[in-house]
Amino acid sequence: MQLHPDCVVCMFQQALRIAKATTDDQQKQWEILNRLAKEMADLPVTTISVEIAGRIRQIVAETTGETNPYHQQKQHYNDIALKLYPHLRELVKNSQDPLLTAIRIAIAGNIVDFGIGDTFDLEKTVDDSLNQEFAIFDYQEFRQQLTGVQKILYLADNTGEIVFDRLLVEILQKQGKQVTVAVRGGSVLNDATLEDARYVGLDEVCEVIGNGAALPGTVFSETSSQFQQHFHQADLIVSKGQGNFEGLSDMDAPLVFLLKAKCSPIAQELGVEPGSMVFLAASKTRQLA
Amino acid sequence: MQLHPDCVVCMFQQALRIAKATTDDQQKQWEILNRLAKEMADLPVTTISVEIAGRIRQIVAETTGETNPYHQQKQHYNDIALKLYPHLRELVKNSQDPLLTAIRIAIAGNIVDFGIGDTFDLEKTVDDSLNQEFAIFDYQEFRQQLTGVQKILYLADNTGEIVFDRLLVEILQKQGKQVTVAVRGGSVLNDATLEDARYVGLDEVCEVIGNGAALPGTVFSETSSQFQQHFHQADLIVSKGQGNFEGLSDMDAPLVFLLKAKCSPIAQELGVEPGSMVFLAASKTRQLA
Repeated sequence: MQLHPDCVVCMFQQALRIAKATTDDQQKQWEILNRLAKEMADLPVTTISVEIAGRIRQIVAETTGETNPYHQQKQHYNDIALKLYPHLRELVKNSQDPLLTAIRIAIAGNIVDFGIGDTFDLEKTVDDSLNQEFAIFDYQEFRQQLTGVQKILYLADNTGEIVFDRLLVEILQKQGKQVTVAVRGGSVLNDATLEDARYVGLDEVCEVIGNGAALPGTVFSETSSQFQQHFHQADLIVSKGQGNFEGLSDMDAPLVFLLKAKCSPIAQELGVEPGSMVFLAASKTRQLA
Repeated sequence: MQLHPDCVVCMFQQALRIAKATTDDQQKQWEILNRLAKEMADLPVTTISVEIAGRIRQIVAETTGETNPYHQQKQHYNDIALKLYPHLRELVKNSQDPLLTAIRIAIAGNIVDFGIGDTFDLEKTVDDSLNQEFAIFDYQEFRQQLTGVQKILYLADNTGEIVFDRLLVEILQKQGKQVTVAVRGGSVLNDATLEDARYVGLDEVCEVIGNGAALPGTVFSETSSQFQQHFHQADLIVSKGQGNFEGLSDMDAPLVFLLKAKCSPIAQELGVEPGSMVFLAASKTRQLA
């Protein structure tokens, strides 16, 4: 997905939030924004916003020495989600359609995104997501597709959220699927890494791999060969969140995208209202493009 | 007043809002942001944000040919304010302290600012401003100062707002003061120009001059010699709004600043909460610095 003009402003907002979370030194905050402006001045419109977020991560690291500014917040949202987990597991188990309920909860987790803001009410979002209508809902298509599927690659997004992803992974496993979860290759924003996957015990239920890139989304060319192998061998790829969608929306692969359209460029790209819940099969993505 | 890191983000937000108000062509919107990024990359921290806003104006004009993108909105807020004017005039006339009531209303008008947002409830802000406590209130000092004053230069800020300024100008004239109002030298954002002053009939009650610069604030070095002459000859200078404060806060002159602290850098600079009403005598400004 190409950059929208709004993305430029959003990237500066993100850089300012991270700068402030990382250092009180206004001179350094200034330097971070200055350096980002230099990058933005020569930016081709074909850049994926996720790549800029990766550059912000590097600039912040070079300016302040901090490579994981949201460390505490990541822990915090993992802990909140872990507390909710037993209750949500019961909810999935007792629901009429456990697969759909797990999908709804997995999308709810997608609200915690430090690329967008810095406070989130996870519990309220879960409640909302259980009742909210989907703006795009390729669920029947997905169910049909699922019958012939053996290997699933599940592209995780953020911390906290990965606890909810576990519910969906477990449901898929119950249906006899072999699920591998891919997380980020390095810490960036509040995105889930191998460390987080281990912290929430995701590695105890399925194989978890890093994707080789410290970007808050999947830019295929930046990922490791291990990841690319998994990607090509998967019968189905479940892609969570905006960052993965931005990087993969133009790819020809058996993808389904589960996300909350949190910003207007993404909503516009998908033809939905901001705030919408989206369950999009890849075949439809190619129709959008 | 020096730039804060927040100002960088704010300037990109402003540029995006203006770009969208001016053209639907995303390529041009993109170009405007790209060119702004180029400017920002080499920006000295001593720049006044008002100067960047002036550069945005130029970039938009060069990219789209539009030099007055908020023409209609300016008219709209002038009209709203003109409708409110008779009622507010009665309110001032019948109040226990007409001078203070006129000051409160003049500050209320300061809320309409397309540098900050694009929708404003002028009527509600007037009601609020009549009751809100001032965070800085050098009113008694101002009254004393006023007794020895003959020539007043009144630095106007925005359209709509200038209708309310007229109430204060008329009260000052009733006290025998000779008031000259200075407006912007060219259209920028929703700032008041000579055209607006004429539209709302301000030129019928006092002398109105342009300040020679199409900037949304007063950067002294950019103003015309006519303006500078008025500035030096004035016994008192009433400065309305953030943009004038940003440009003049460090100047050694008999200034009083009337403004609503609409953004956090200004609020921080003044040591008040965002949203505060401020009536600041210049002697205090120098203590702040």
